[in-house]
Amino acid sequence: MSFQSEIVLKPIGVVKTTAVGDDVKDKTRISRIIIHNELAEALDGVDGFSHLFVLFWLHKIPDEQRKTLKVHPRGRRDLPLVGIFATRSMLRPNPVGLTLVELVKVEGNVLTVRGLDALDGTPVLDIKPFDNWDTARDAKVPRWWTKLENERA
Amino acid sequence: MSFQSEIVLKPIGVVKTTAVGDDVKDKTRISRIIIHNELAEALDGVDGFSHLFVLFWLHKIPDEQRKTLKVHPRGRRDLPLVGIFATRSMLRPNPVGLTLVELVKVEGNVLTVRGLDALDGTPVLDIKPFDNWDTARDAKVPRWWTKLENERA
Repeated sequence: MSFQSEIVLKPIGVVKTTAVGDDVKDKTRISRIIIHNELAEALDGVDGFSHLFVLFWLHKIPDEQRKTLKVHPRGRRDLPLVGIFATRSMLRPNPVGLTLVELVKVEGNVLTVRGLDALDGTPVLDIKPFDNWDTARDAKVPRWWTKLENERA
Repeated sequence: MSFQSEIVLKPIGVVKTTAVGDDVKDKTRISRIIIHNELAEALDGVDGFSHLFVLFWLHKIPDEQRKTLKVHPRGRRDLPLVGIFATRSMLRPNPVGLTLVELVKVEGNVLTVRGLDALDGTPVLDIKPFDNWDTARDAKVPRWWTKLENERA
């Protein structure tokens, strides 16, 4: 079996937010995504959608942390040690973040969005419109996940 | 404003499917994802989820097509010319595919999934568990999008 060895991406823009640290996880927070000027035209029609997926590069993750294979979710030792691909941990072989955001407005090359949990200066890799085919009804999740969800609520 | 210039990803695995061409879009199709052996441990606990996001590299897109900024969705001239970021077109600055799949089973380093619209040999970049926070109720989409959806149904 052959694997392509390296894949090179270039940021399409950058996140701007005044939120610092864990405040970025506040889903009511507003951020801006500044798209490279030469790509601004690629935003035409984005305002027809209410929600977008944002793919971004977790640029604060040191390379050696990309080797992490298992974690206690959110570092909690009372939760089971699970594989990275069973979590949304930032420590992953390819530290790409994926977040569904609400689109507030589009002005030129600037998207204003609600609910983007990315730090100021985060490189953005892609913007994809959201539709219902991206949804699973009655999705099953493990017990530890539900526990975390309930604590957050 | 400074942009990180290049981001390097490495495939975590590869797609195996007998589907060819447009058959990969059949959402009932079964594919396998072969994860690199040295990353197999990172799958522990994935079987607790019914649905996963798969991020993959659209390796058949030639580099020059990454410069495309606007398209007629699915090449249809009866639909408006819109920006790439308003579509799920494969021609994008960073040709990363994102698909929600149903997890059928996990055996060692092999995931069997339903609904992955990726060609045989596609490099896989990440696997993320799906939960309801990845969903927007009553998401708004443009009229051309609804038209395509209705035709497909």
